Amino acid sequence: MDELVKKVVRLKGVTANLGACSTEDKNDALLSIANELIEGIDYILVENQKDIAAGKDKGFSNTLLDRLTLSVERIQDMSHALKLLTELKDPIGEVISETTRPNGLLLKNVRVPLGVIGMIYEARPNVTVDAASLCLKTGNAVLLRGSSSASFSNNALVKVIHKALEKSKVPKDAVQLLEDSSRETAEKMFTLNDYLDVLIPRGGASLIQSVIAKATVPVIETGVGNCHVYIDETANVEMAMDIVVNAKTQRPSVCNAAETLLVHKNWATNHLTELVDRLVDKNVTLKGDSKAITLDKRINPATEEDWETEYLGLELAVKTVTNVEEAIEHISTYGTKHSEAILSENTSNVEKFFTFVDAAALYHNASTRFTDGFEFGFGAEIGISTQKLHARGPMGLEALTSSKYLIYGNGQIK
Amino acid sequence: MDELVKKVVRLKGVTANLGACSTEDKNDALLSIANELIEGIDYILVENQKDIAAGKDKGFSNTLLDRLTLSVERIQDMSHALKLLTELKDPIGEVISETTRPNGLLLKNVRVPLGVIGMIYEARPNVTVDAASLCLKTGNAVLLRGSSSASFSNNALVKVIHKALEKSKVPKDAVQLLEDSSRETAEKMFTLNDYLDVLIPRGGASLIQSVIAKATVPVIETGVGNCHVYIDETANVEMAMDIVVNAKTQRPSVCNAAETLLVHKNWATNHLTELVDRLVDKNVTLKGDSKAITLDKRINPATEEDWETEYLGLELAVKTVTNVEEAIEHISTYGTKHSEAILSENTSNVEKFFTFVDAAALYHNASTRFTDGFEFGFGAEIGISTQKLHARGPMGLEALTSSKYLIYGNGQIK
Repeated sequence: MDELVKKVVRLKGVTANLGACSTEDKNDALLSIANELIEGIDYILVENQKDIAAGKDKGFSNTLLDRLTLSVERIQDMSHALKLLTELKDPIGEVISETTRPNGLLLKNVRVPLGVIGMIYEARPNVTVDAASLCLKTGNAVLLRGSSSASFSNNALVKVIHKALEKSKVPKDAVQLLEDSSRETAEKMFTLNDYLDVLIPRGGASLIQSVIAKATVPVIETGVGNCHVYIDETANVEMAMDIVVNAKTQRPSVCNAAETLLVHKNWATNHLTELVDRLVDKNVTLKGDSKAITLDKRINPATEEDWETEYLGLELAVKTVTNVEEAIEHISTYGTKHSEAILSENTSNVEKFFTFVDAAALYHNASTRFTDGFEFGFGAEIGISTQKLHARGPMGLEALTSSKYLIYGNGQIK
Repeated sequence: MDELVKKVVRLKGVTANLGACSTEDKNDALLSIANELIEGIDYILVENQKDIAAGKDKGFSNTLLDRLTLSVERIQDMSHALKLLTELKDPIGEVISETTRPNGLLLKNVRVPLGVIGMIYEARPNVTVDAASLCLKTGNAVLLRGSSSASFSNNALVKVIHKALEKSKVPKDAVQLLEDSSRETAEKMFTLNDYLDVLIPRGGASLIQSVIAKATVPVIETGVGNCHVYIDETANVEMAMDIVVNAKTQRPSVCNAAETLLVHKNWATNHLTELVDRLVDKNVTLKGDSKAITLDKRINPATEEDWETEYLGLELAVKTVTNVEEAIEHISTYGTKHSEAILSENTSNVEKFFTFVDAAALYHNASTRFTDGFEFGFGAEIGISTQKLHARGPMGLEALTSSKYLIYGNGQIK
């Protein structure tokens, strides 16, 4: 039996007992992991260094190396996050609804775990602990498929998790790391409908698109954000500039950063140059349509590709529009249904934008950077869903649950 | 452009306007369809006769022909169901949650349509009207792919729907019937991720499994029910017999009918023969394990296949077990996560069953036949989900919705 099959069989085998674990047992297990992470710092860092050395040999960019790197502080942060997770309400067992039917049947809809979750992610070892802990908190077993570039780190972290689970009442087998990180094996996961209840890919657009295109297991699509900020004719000038600069530059590498500025032509005529001053000050490179270029020579010509691109860096596409409808139309064509903002003092235009733009999060007079489980007050986040089924927008613990109906009778027949 | 592409483009084109239709506009459209169905009775029946004649030529069974057949009464029932649907609460626009964050952002999570729904179903023309009306009520556009055996009937019904929509404010293009009912074209639907938000197959196990195996568009799995009734040692004798007879025979062709009886050996020793008397009276054929056969010679030997089979007819598999754990184990192996019942006076066994059996609906001392959107009080049903993502169990109007966050700020940046 190959590694993948062996591990999914093990995961499936523990789901019933895992789902029945009490909140206390699960929290004890999370605290045990928090402690073992601290105990294991030296070991984890040694293993992490092997990945970093290999990454340097392969010529990884500084950004990639930074994502790959663990440190005492980062491991302490992981440990702290686990403690915070124990303080969050356990969604499992929650009674979602309860009704008594005219025939006397008592119907309770209760929250239960999804079962086995397949996480597919890139070279970020922190996701290993993050995903495992969120799954355990919600009574789910998890198959972790990280990147081969992080395999020493991921192995070390999962060894630490297993050591911690052995000291707890949560079955150790509930967390499995796929050591074979070949593409072929990952693709085998995509169709294991009898063993995996959901796949959650976390990473770049190409990873996510590949999972969606090939998987028959249900997928929760996360994170690709070609986000727009639309400055309407009536937008408050200072507020609009602050928001655009923030949405673009505060942390450009993340999915809720702005990638295209749509700007009403009249606002642009009066204020675009000042906004460009502020963006250029922050080292932003601009590409725009012909009207934008006419208004400010620092803007270079944009191509079709610019409207489609999630730059994830200090670049911004700029398109002038004649009204809110044109902005909505542009977003419908190029958006990825993540986060979209309108900056306006015109209530009717805001309402149009909120009604006709199809995205997980729509903002009026605020930065797109707030689309995030913590900012939304969920206390945890497994990712940001850009699909419409099951969960949409930042996903907290509830997104990792399903439900079942428990029906209490006293002999009812139909 | 082929028919499929042309139609999904049309559907996608109307989603924004359809989603913005008021409850009144949608209800007016449903009432208009209700009226046109009555106006069109003669036309619909003439077209339906063509399908029936072709079905007879092809040697369809009486059950199939019955499902295919429309009558004045059945069309009146459809029309009446549409009127009832207008009385149900419109889920679109509902504020699911509303919070103000410490930074002053007001976060509203509101219910929105899914977008475009692909319905794939067998030769039951009533599903055409049923699916179209539930989708319209929830602001969704729908691509209907029925069976070629019902193509005259489906075409007639969709013509009537279009005629009705032309008199309403709901875009006529929101309902499209795929006239090309070849398997190849249906399979092309499975991967139209840019156009279809969800596929809902309704029909037999092989249809549903084929969609799940091949689709990359999210699927809501419906309806296959290999349902079990477990008679525990302490089960009330009369109640148990009534429930088993009801679950098996009241309407054996449906997904929530019982297919396997699991019976505690001690209960079986004392009462199985009497239960078999009652089942045989109702023309039920029984297949069982060796212990069951020893207790009653009218039971024939069961094979592995019997435990797996959704008979959908007057057959019942019978397996004796030594305790509730063995019953749970059997259901875990052979069940389809639909509806499972325990008949028992032992609270601890009921709790075990409710905790460890993984299914959409679990019953204590009641027939499995109640798993149904109407019995659950939803007023409508688009199908019964046997998967865990998005919706589980009978699906009412809410299952056809998604949500989006509307965030109101006054200049917040991060």
